[in-house]
Amino acid sequence: MNVAEYLIKKLNVLGITDFFGLPGDYNLNIVDAIENNPDTNWIGCTNELNAGYAADGYARQKGFGALVTTYGTGELAAINAIAGSYAENISVVHIVGAPSTEILNGKEIYHHNFQEPKPQCFMQAYKEIIETAVFLNRDNFKIEIDRVLKILIKERKPIYIAIPEDIALTEIPDKNADYEWVSNSDTLDKACEAIIEKINKSKNPLIIADTLIKRFDAVSEFTDFVSKSGIPNANFLMGANIINMDTENYIGTYLSKYGNTNVKEYLENTDCLISVGVIYGDINSFGTPLPYKINSQIAIYGTYTYIDAKKYSDIKMSDLLKKLAKNINHKNYKINKEKIGYEVPVVSKTKLSTDYIYPRLQSFFKGEDIIFAETGTISLGIAPMKLPENCELHSQLLWCSTGWATPASFGGAIANPKARVVLITGDGSHQISAMEIGNMCRFGVKPVIIVINNNGYSTERLISATDETKFNDIMPLDYAKFARSFKGDIWSTKVETDDDFDKALRVTQIMDKICYIEAVIDKSDSPRIAKEIFTPKNALKSAKSVNEKKSGKKHKKDEEKIDLKISVDKSYETNVHTSLKGYEE
Amino acid sequence: MNVAEYLIKKLNVLGITDFFGLPGDYNLNIVDAIENNPDTNWIGCTNELNAGYAADGYARQKGFGALVTTYGTGELAAINAIAGSYAENISVVHIVGAPSTEILNGKEIYHHNFQEPKPQCFMQAYKEIIETAVFLNRDNFKIEIDRVLKILIKERKPIYIAIPEDIALTEIPDKNADYEWVSNSDTLDKACEAIIEKINKSKNPLIIADTLIKRFDAVSEFTDFVSKSGIPNANFLMGANIINMDTENYIGTYLSKYGNTNVKEYLENTDCLISVGVIYGDINSFGTPLPYKINSQIAIYGTYTYIDAKKYSDIKMSDLLKKLAKNINHKNYKINKEKIGYEVPVVSKTKLSTDYIYPRLQSFFKGEDIIFAETGTISLGIAPMKLPENCELHSQLLWCSTGWATPASFGGAIANPKARVVLITGDGSHQISAMEIGNMCRFGVKPVIIVINNNGYSTERLISATDETKFNDIMPLDYAKFARSFKGDIWSTKVETDDDFDKALRVTQIMDKICYIEAVIDKSDSPRIAKEIFTPKNALKSAKSVNEKKSGKKHKKDEEKIDLKISVDKSYETNVHTSLKGYEE
Repeated sequence: MNVAEYLIKKLNVLGITDFFGLPGDYNLNIVDAIENNPDTNWIGCTNELNAGYAADGYARQKGFGALVTTYGTGELAAINAIAGSYAENISVVHIVGAPSTEILNGKEIYHHNFQEPKPQCFMQAYKEIIETAVFLNRDNFKIEIDRVLKILIKERKPIYIAIPEDIALTEIPDKNADYEWVSNSDTLDKACEAIIEKINKSKNPLIIADTLIKRFDAVSEFTDFVSKSGIPNANFLMGANIINMDTENYIGTYLSKYGNTNVKEYLENTDCLISVGVIYGDINSFGTPLPYKINSQIAIYGTYTYIDAKKYSDIKMSDLLKKLAKNINHKNYKINKEKIGYEVPVVSKTKLSTDYIYPRLQSFFKGEDIIFAETGTISLGIAPMKLPENCELHSQLLWCSTGWATPASFGGAIANPKARVVLITGDGSHQISAMEIGNMCRFGVKPVIIVINNNGYSTERLISATDETKFNDIMPLDYAKFARSFKGDIWSTKVETDDDFDKALRVTQIMDKICYIEAVIDKSDSPRIAKEIFTPKNALKSAKSVNEKKSGKKHKKDEEKIDLKISVDKSYETNVHTSLKGYEE
Repeated sequence: MNVAEYLIKKLNVLGITDFFGLPGDYNLNIVDAIENNPDTNWIGCTNELNAGYAADGYARQKGFGALVTTYGTGELAAINAIAGSYAENISVVHIVGAPSTEILNGKEIYHHNFQEPKPQCFMQAYKEIIETAVFLNRDNFKIEIDRVLKILIKERKPIYIAIPEDIALTEIPDKNADYEWVSNSDTLDKACEAIIEKINKSKNPLIIADTLIKRFDAVSEFTDFVSKSGIPNANFLMGANIINMDTENYIGTYLSKYGNTNVKEYLENTDCLISVGVIYGDINSFGTPLPYKINSQIAIYGTYTYIDAKKYSDIKMSDLLKKLAKNINHKNYKINKEKIGYEVPVVSKTKLSTDYIYPRLQSFFKGEDIIFAETGTISLGIAPMKLPENCELHSQLLWCSTGWATPASFGGAIANPKARVVLITGDGSHQISAMEIGNMCRFGVKPVIIVINNNGYSTERLISATDETKFNDIMPLDYAKFARSFKGDIWSTKVETDDDFDKALRVTQIMDKICYIEAVIDKSDSPRIAKEIFTPKNALKSAKSVNEKKSGKKHKKDEEKIDLKISVDKSYETNVHTSLKGYEE
């Protein structure tokens, strides 16, 4: 067994069956090891950033994911994805195929490096955005692989492993390495005791849940703790639907002043905040400052817990929640529950708008669905929803890398080929990474893809002072035709009214293929919360653009003029009305 | 005048009229400054990596280029492009719009950073792959902008400038800063003297030219020196056509043992190698080791010169070449000139192959053309060509980032809207960054695009031991249809025979729009030199895949099966024969 095979085997034991990436001239030994392992698949992507996002989406579903790139070019192209995984505790292993030791240590100049080669500089760049990285060599490979995998398992953060070509082929003894760690039982006991004492003393405790509960595999323990305790339970946005929204003591997603104001009131008035796996941030927690009441907060994280600013280290979140559930006394706290979710919308033949789209999507989603919602305005349209039990929502709300959702949904679909994956994205975000639609076709996954097209960057348009900022426009694309240029099993359509959007969603339910819906809305249309949050920055400054008319610029084409030149070709569009024949409800 | 406006104005003075990038929530002040400056244009791209490549392509043509991204996500997405610019001395200014000083220095968590924010970590990552980076603040902005621009002008390498939102709006006095530097005249005299003495003593001197001559604006001085001296002159691959290939003492591109063997003989036998602006590397100089004969070499670089391993600092390449041209005595050296270039091919109706494509392209290229050739097998097909005078060839042969050429050609076309830009790329490379075709449409540039489709990664296929490596396959795409899904002035076609390829090239000459040709060749077809250079690595290991048949894997679809499901829709393809009616030569 060689080093590449050893690593792939160990990652497979963690549940990784699919490896995302691109082959490159320094990583073929690694890709070979994946292809040759009967339990692992190679999932080639169009580019490394997309592959990184796909591995992230896969890891969000399966717990762990892996990305394989070549050295220099490939790894740097993916660094933004890995930084996002780091920001949000997504356990992605980035394996980099590096030049041979001979090349690295030699005096000659080799491609994917500089005129004065700096062999390890790319790993150094990675070290700025993750915690652990290793460049394997002849002396360290026997211990370093196991060391970084242990960190991966404990910290649930991405790790980076560069493997020179010759090292990948070096023999290594197979061994049953155990990477698991256990809580310090003494500290665990103390923390549990202190928490229960604090809860018992309090009058109005509140549990705020968030996405790290998923990342640290503690969902069932958390659910148990919430129900055993009876404590009112809310969540930040990324933590939506970790607990069933019909749970008796569930009060809603914290939306600050923009919705579910009962939750805001609870948060402001609690004398005992129990935050579990929380990621603070300007979007996810609506600017709830960190450390939020840290001096009087119980903050349970993946590997440690704070109680009134005292840190208890080496405690697994799941162990602590389990112990708490066992020892907590149930109380009947006052549960002030507002109605959660959008009202059921009325279908009409009027022009499509977000006022219809999001409520309609709420009723479209069903249990076991896996939703990938793009960052920005999309996730804020999803935010107020009542989600069905066991439907999973993924959104990247701290790193907020526009373009993440499309490839991430591909990864999510590969991770769960039997589930229905629904991607909700915007036109600007989608264009960033849309080529991955082709690999959805190639690998036979069948997500429902909804591209909400308002012809530009919505968030940026909202924070620009004027609608006349041309830089928020993007290139026009015939999305339905684009989707069908990939050779695969794909149905695409373009809808412009509530009625057609409704019908298109119903069509998806009888289609056993990728369904791709372009939903056209007004340029100025955005979900209400997005409009309230994203207000113009530096209004005075930007207002200048309105007055300063520019003329005589080259490269600036009049949009209508372009449109006139397009040959009218609508044959590619499946008519939603026709498709529905015989399937009407 | 504020800081953003000041910077944009200074960059405009350097000749930058077009700024590539994406708007993001931290960089709107900068994009505003570009939009509001009557002499500068904002060129929005689909994603940051493409924008970085486009700025690189633009800078290759115009000398300087600029990229604008947001902080964190945007800048990291582009880092691979900037690293490539650094590797190859492309002067790109990367401007990053950062959060306000208040946010950066505050205690709250903000998006595009981590759970424990590290405000400057992205700049630190950049420092690993470029030489100079600056994060502006209230104390340094008045001096740091000028400082880094001076480095840009001298070193011709990318620089990085992060500007917090509030700093962008801070007032700064406009001043006529002079960023130029001058050679040390004393050192210049000494170097010139030493070089002429060494040349005069030698029997068979040889000049090797390369791309840095362009980067350091010394093409005319170099041409003059070559012709005045009479010394035989060759070039490495990226330096092809810097000097007219019909120049009397020009002997060809160094292709090692793979072609132009007269050049190899000269290089091996010279007693006085004069290298000018050379980038060594395994591809560009065919593995010519560095320092190649450094102890007895005259090596002229942009800002310094080595003579017999002695360094002469602070000498401009152009100054030295000018002085050499003035002082050198012409001699009639023996010029052993092999025939340069491919034989004119015979058109037939047989299946298209690279044996036809590259010779045919050679006759298609004309003076003033700007060619962007993708790295890998494509550039090796171009390598043996006889190029017409003043036709410029761009290829990225040290950094070798697959996918670079498509957006780079977009940048090149924006830089020279009147020239014919020709992009030659492969299917795998093209898919990485193909969305930029849409911005070519949007901004009205009209390149000729040739996608050579052999259904997979050619270089990787050549270095894999067996043809059965599935990981070198890529997703099937209907390229002609894909190109036409962008709303713009575009003609696309798919050709599969020599005859049709020939006709399609002729069609492009009568089309005033983007011409996009998918040229289908056999999976195993590659230019001869590529086949000879890229031989299987680790053959023993890889051969295993042939024997180890895997079965029962999910996600792996049979390709024919996918094809069967495609609805036949050929209407979008313009028939090349029809198009030629009335235009036949």
